[in-house]
Amino acid sequence: MDSESFYGVTLSEKEPIAQFDVPEIPEEYIIHSHKLIIKQIFLGPEAKQGEFNVVQAETKVSDKETVKIPIAVLKVGETRSLNPNVEFPNGSVTFKLVQGTGPVYVCGKAELNLGEFEDGQIYEEYSEDEGSDLDFEDDVPPQTNGKSNKKK
Amino acid sequence: MDSESFYGVTLSEKEPIAQFDVPEIPEEYIIHSHKLIIKQIFLGPEAKQGEFNVVQAETKVSDKETVKIPIAVLKVGETRSLNPNVEFPNGSVTFKLVQGTGPVYVCGKAELNLGEFEDGQIYEEYSEDEGSDLDFEDDVPPQTNGKSNKKK
Amino acid sequence: MDSESFYGVTLSEKEPIAQFDVPEIPEEYIIHSHKLIIKQIFLGPEAKQGEFNVVQAETKVSDKETVKIPIAVLKVGETRSLNPNVEFPNGSVTFKLVQGTGPVYVCGKAELNLGEFEDGQIYEEYSEDEGSDLDFEDDVPPQTNGKSNKKK
Amino acid sequence: MDSESFYGVTLSEKEPIAQFDVPEIPEEYIIHSHKLIIKQIFLGPEAKQGEFNVVQAETKVSDKETVKIPIAVLKVGETRSLNPNVEFPNGSVTFKLVQGTGPVYVCGKAELNLGEFEDGQIYEEYSEDEGSDLDFEDDVPPQTNGKSNKKK
Amino acid sequence: MDSESFYGVTLSEKEPIAQFDVPEIPEEYIIHSHKLIIKQIFLGPEAKQGEFNVVQAETKVSDKETVKIPIAVLKVGETRSLNPNVEFPNGSVTFKLVQGTGPVYVCGKAELNLGEFEDGQIYEEYSEDEGSDLDFEDDVPPQTNGKSNKKK
Repeated sequence: MDSESFYGVTLSEKEPIAQFDVPEIPEEYIIHSHKLIIKQIFLGPEAKQGEFNVVQAETKVSDKETVKIPIAVLKVGETRSLNPNVEFPNGSVTFKLVQGTGPVYVCGKAELNLGEFEDGQIYEEYSEDEGSDLDFEDDVPPQTNGKSNKKK
Repeated sequence: MDSESFYGVTLSEKEPIAQFDVPEIPEEYIIHSHKLIIKQIFLGPEAKQGEFNVVQAETKVSDKETVKIPIAVLKVGETRSLNPNVEFPNGSVTFKLVQGTGPVYVCGKAELNLGEFEDGQIYEEYSEDEGSDLDFEDDVPPQTNGKSNKKK
Repeated sequence: MDSESFYGVTLSEKEPIAQFDVPEIPEEYIIHSHKLIIKQIFLGPEAKQGEFNVVQAETKVSDKETVKIPIAVLKVGETRSLNPNVEFPNGSVTFKLVQGTGPVYVCGKAELNLGEFEDGQIYEEYSEDEGSDLDFEDDVPPQTNGKSNKKK
Repeated sequence: MDSESFYGVTLSEKEPIAQFDVPEIPEEYIIHSHKLIIKQIFLGPEAKQGEFNVVQAETKVSDKETVKIPIAVLKVGETRSLNPNVEFPNGSVTFKLVQGTGPVYVCGKAELNLGEFEDGQIYEEYSEDEGSDLDFEDDVPPQTNGKSNKKK
Repeated sequence: MDSESFYGVTLSEKEPIAQFDVPEIPEEYIIHSHKLIIKQIFLGPEAKQGEFNVVQAETKVSDKETVKIPIAVLKVGETRSLNPNVEFPNGSVTFKLVQGTGPVYVCGKAELNLGEFEDGQIYEEYSEDEGSDLDFEDDVPPQTNGKSNKKK
């Protein structure tokens, strides 16, 4: 089950942090992927002239490594708006207004891809895409190597 | 049945609101998805020098939550045009010119994905993509687990 | 049969109109889709300082409705170039330089998707994508509902 | 066999022309498609203040028609960089710096899609996408119309 | 197995080089593709007024040819940010700040596509996409040409 939704948050001096996290889901489901794509970051009309506004992202890039890096440097009269188009495929990311008072608007898209644990069929369909359907292959009778029928 | 169409509306002091909604369709059809993608928002040549024009979007991001956030802050002499590339996948969104007099042009693409209720075949095809073909699977004879024939 | 091609036209005071239309094709073919995507609109180096150049698009958005809206407002010294990324999926659109003298360059991509009428096989393949293969399904013997073999 | 590669060339007064062409390949292969996508065109730091730099593209848009049109108008202090995102799907295109002295950097992606002539299997797979597998269909025994097995 | 991750590095006078390389993987795996897409390059708020910052990419474009070309020319007060959208599909690329003192932020996405050597099934699935499943085809009994069952 794929689901997409609009993502929009406001960062300001008062609320400088926005957290994007894996949602809680019923236990019979499994999250195959959970991605956030940031399409546009821009200053509100009331942002201060000449003040830098810096949005930092903190996210895991692998099991062991976390990256903390600016994804937007905005300044009225110079750069009011950016289209970063950066993607956070690992399910969770934290945005922080580390400089400036905003308001900074962060817009994008959240993509959630769910499967059901109890349903081998569906589970398999999804896991094929992820190359992890090995356990299910064991159920295939040996005389059919699955090859001529298997495709994407 | 997939259908795409150009989307273009004008927001101004007189008509500051544009609503994008799920279309009325014959009852034998079902709307699988209905998405609006905003590609470009920009000021007309007659927009006032130095005036801020702010376009706000209001849309549901889940069954329970509605977001209301600017998607464009425009100003002649500074930012005449933006490419927000934001997507509204939940079928309905309202754009409102909450500041400024425009005219502001909003261009994009509407995507409608329809299926037919009375036609199990087609319904199934589409619902496979959405992981909800469980009921139909019950029709598959037990000796074929559907696996070797099932692909994407 | 899918075909893509570069699209590039020049609008100027002399030739302010460019028409994109469904091409003439041999009668054994059918056009499944015909789309134009406008990637970039920009002023030539000889465009006049301070003059607005406005490109308007006129296109059908449904069987009943035609939209006429600017897709680019350009001005030397302010906005020389835009990336509208707007798509015209309905086969035909007319661009008109409604203000300014240009030259304005309009670049993009045309996509044509053709099928053959006389060839049920191919016709069906394409029409599956459009959910209109109902007539062909009637040819399927009733005992096979086509389900386990039918997929995308 | 699909292959992608980074594309980057420099245009200058000395070398104002860059040609992108269909590569030479072993005769047992066939080129199914060969596309160049131009992602970014921009001026080097040493480009002259106030000088226009115009990059022209010349490409075939059909068997009979060739288009010659600017795809970038750059000027230090006004437009240093563009993201044309134009695609040249017909295998060959020539870029020429028709005005200015550069240096102008042209970056993008080349996509090559190859098949093998001697290998019916692979040839067919690719040609399915192009709707030209009619000759191969003749090999299908008449009792199987290929329909229930044929999908995308 | 497909894996995506956010990519973010900082280039400065002190650390002017960032290398993107094929990761070390367990020997039972094979890397089918490894791609880096650069979405945004921009100057930090502390970058010096009027100083050019030039980011150069060095990458292989074929087995025999290496390209070394700027992908970003940045300057405070003129061009603080770019969206190059360039892709490096060949697994490895080196970014170098060849002019200026930064800091320059480079953001994008890394895509890794892995298969398993010991698993013919999976290996084949992937290699089909690359047109190199010829060796595996030899295992197909001659009487089945695989054609009617083979699709994408």
